[in-house]
Amino acid sequence: MSAEQITTIPDGHIASAAGFTTGAIYAGLKTYGKDKLDLGLLYSSTPAAAAGVFTQNKVVSPTITLDRRRLAARSAQAVMVNSGCANACVGPQGMLDAIAMAAIAARKLGIAEELVLVASTGIIGVELPMALLRAKIPLIDLSAAHGHQFARAIMTTDSVPKEAAVRFTMGGKVCTIAGVAKGVGMIHPNMATMLCFVASDAAVEPVHLQDALKSAVDQSLNMVSVDGDSSTNDSCIILANGQAGNPVIRAGTPEAALFEQALAQVLITLAKKIARDGEGATKLLEVIVEGAASLEDARRAARAVTSSPLVKAAVHGADPNWGRVVMALGKSGARMEEDALVVYINDICMMDNGQPVPFFKDAAVVSMREPDVRVRARLGVGQHTATAWGCDLTEEYVRYNSAYTT
Amino acid sequence: MSAEQITTIPDGHIASAAGFTTGAIYAGLKTYGKDKLDLGLLYSSTPAAAAGVFTQNKVVSPTITLDRRRLAARSAQAVMVNSGCANACVGPQGMLDAIAMAAIAARKLGIAEELVLVASTGIIGVELPMALLRAKIPLIDLSAAHGHQFARAIMTTDSVPKEAAVRFTMGGKVCTIAGVAKGVGMIHPNMATMLCFVASDAAVEPVHLQDALKSAVDQSLNMVSVDGDSSTNDSCIILANGQAGNPVIRAGTPEAALFEQALAQVLITLAKKIARDGEGATKLLEVIVEGAASLEDARRAARAVTSSPLVKAAVHGADPNWGRVVMALGKSGARMEEDALVVYINDICMMDNGQPVPFFKDAAVVSMREPDVRVRARLGVGQHTATAWGCDLTEEYVRYNSAYTT
Repeated sequence: MSAEQITTIPDGHIASAAGFTTGAIYAGLKTYGKDKLDLGLLYSSTPAAAAGVFTQNKVVSPTITLDRRRLAARSAQAVMVNSGCANACVGPQGMLDAIAMAAIAARKLGIAEELVLVASTGIIGVELPMALLRAKIPLIDLSAAHGHQFARAIMTTDSVPKEAAVRFTMGGKVCTIAGVAKGVGMIHPNMATMLCFVASDAAVEPVHLQDALKSAVDQSLNMVSVDGDSSTNDSCIILANGQAGNPVIRAGTPEAALFEQALAQVLITLAKKIARDGEGATKLLEVIVEGAASLEDARRAARAVTSSPLVKAAVHGADPNWGRVVMALGKSGARMEEDALVVYINDICMMDNGQPVPFFKDAAVVSMREPDVRVRARLGVGQHTATAWGCDLTEEYVRYNSAYTT
Repeated sequence: MSAEQITTIPDGHIASAAGFTTGAIYAGLKTYGKDKLDLGLLYSSTPAAAAGVFTQNKVVSPTITLDRRRLAARSAQAVMVNSGCANACVGPQGMLDAIAMAAIAARKLGIAEELVLVASTGIIGVELPMALLRAKIPLIDLSAAHGHQFARAIMTTDSVPKEAAVRFTMGGKVCTIAGVAKGVGMIHPNMATMLCFVASDAAVEPVHLQDALKSAVDQSLNMVSVDGDSSTNDSCIILANGQAGNPVIRAGTPEAALFEQALAQVLITLAKKIARDGEGATKLLEVIVEGAASLEDARRAARAVTSSPLVKAAVHGADPNWGRVVMALGKSGARMEEDALVVYINDICMMDNGQPVPFFKDAAVVSMREPDVRVRARLGVGQHTATAWGCDLTEEYVRYNSAYTT
């Protein structure tokens, strides 16, 4: 099993996986953006193994509480999503509305309520306008051709939809993993929300599905920073319905490794799309940390660089300011050997063995004007590596996020 | 002993404490800013008890390494400071230069090298121009009237000097604590550095001096965030020479409590001046967290709010966006009861018992246009309280920090 076996599906979408259909409609929840779609429904024609990873924020939307409860059964058949309203910080009404939203979708689909998961994104502190949901959800037109509509329906301040899908063969059967995500910082007018949904037609042991998702999220969505803030609603949900007909994937097998690799590939692609579309962003920042004492240290150090406002501002200005990279690495708390530190920006070595290298600065500046900037650092204390993604910090970000009332 | 006994010295400066003189000169290290002073010397006519608190960054300037070593003796008589160059990330030459810088000052003062501490702030990755230091340090004119000059000499991108001094009476003797600080985010063109120096004529047991400084820094300088980045050079050093003639202050006494209170007052005043002068800042943001389960939780939650780019941008836009405050509190990891959360902005209640309060929004916006914005939050799980300070996030911050090469 190797990466060559995994192929990207051109123009793939969440309904590229067998047995999945989607639909979207406009109910009037989202009053901004070009895309006037704000309800999306993902449906599998048969019950699927299901797993989820959710925000670590102490304040969570009841949609997440409901999903966590339902995912204990490790089975689901549909996900009902709205944009425009986060259904968070509204007291007990929030849970009632989350349950009702799932029930309306279940009735439309003719399936048990417990098989419907929910997700919400948008303004917090206002209740879901349930009358609109009751009127519009039944009218959603489900089709395997409506995957791109679903991607648009979950967007808030995103400037582009974010989709990725791959195929691989297992036991003579073609399996598909397809994903869609949204989230570019925070949401007009209240808070950031990252939502990600993955549909697969592979047959996967439900317990392993949860572990595989956690592992893939840790190296993808959890390595993205737009502004360092995390939300009440961040969710990543996967459904795997087994309609590809492959032998059930079990933990510890070569098949499990291939599935995990394919899943990580989908989520990393989505993570990079989220970072590149960060609010106000003009560049994708990729930070690779090598030589760390532990995987945790490598991840922490890489994330510290992508989260540093000083690094982000330097990237925006095409400023090869390796000093800020060193500062961010040092601040991360990861173990490092100062005399062994190595820093590259766009493959130009700027610090070696902890000392400045006299590099060709004008050339570095020119290279940093490209839409992709890559920082590579070696900590010199071990063999662990991690990659994180972020974006530049721009005046547009500040304008956007302070312009609500002035 | 009470706070009424502590009085502010109008127009106080670092040399307001008895027995201290200062001086400053321009050597050509700082090529920006209005203030063309870049070397500052603080001198006590007698050896003083000395203590220091330094950056937690894993990458540190050799000036800090040297100070840590010398402070093991808990005694010092002078601090030699330069702005314009951080003397960081320059390999073994950095320590040689730090030692030499102290030695030049020691020769000028006629005291032992070991009694001289050093501090540097400015660009990293370039060596100190020692020839300039050798030529100019001996020319520094020391005087008790030159305190304000010292404050200007340590500035980098600061727009104003930051000074504070208080007096109190102890055992019939008038004691003074005077402080000066610099640091407003990062330094053109490389990295943030916060330096703070405190001079006192009180007599303090050296071991207790270190504890008192640590405690005061934890509730002042450690509660300031301009951009969340910490530097290779952050230092806070105190000298207490005992020339006030008070009985030596020992730990656990009422006198120690009064001294600690006065010291905290000086450092909190400086901390607020640093926050208000944050790069590009137009407002001081004060965040008070109450009802936390522990002091650590209260501090973490308060700092999370002042560090959130979304909160900072909302403050800039005079946007009463309490949702972002809740998100930042939740993200901090501090324990809280969602159903008990209370959030005020400028004394206007926006969330109570975890639910939105229908507040008079236009009035809130008007109040947030003032130069001081105060957020108060109750977590509902305990009795601990902490206050943190920060500033708004502005387009000017981004412009400034990305404008180096473009």
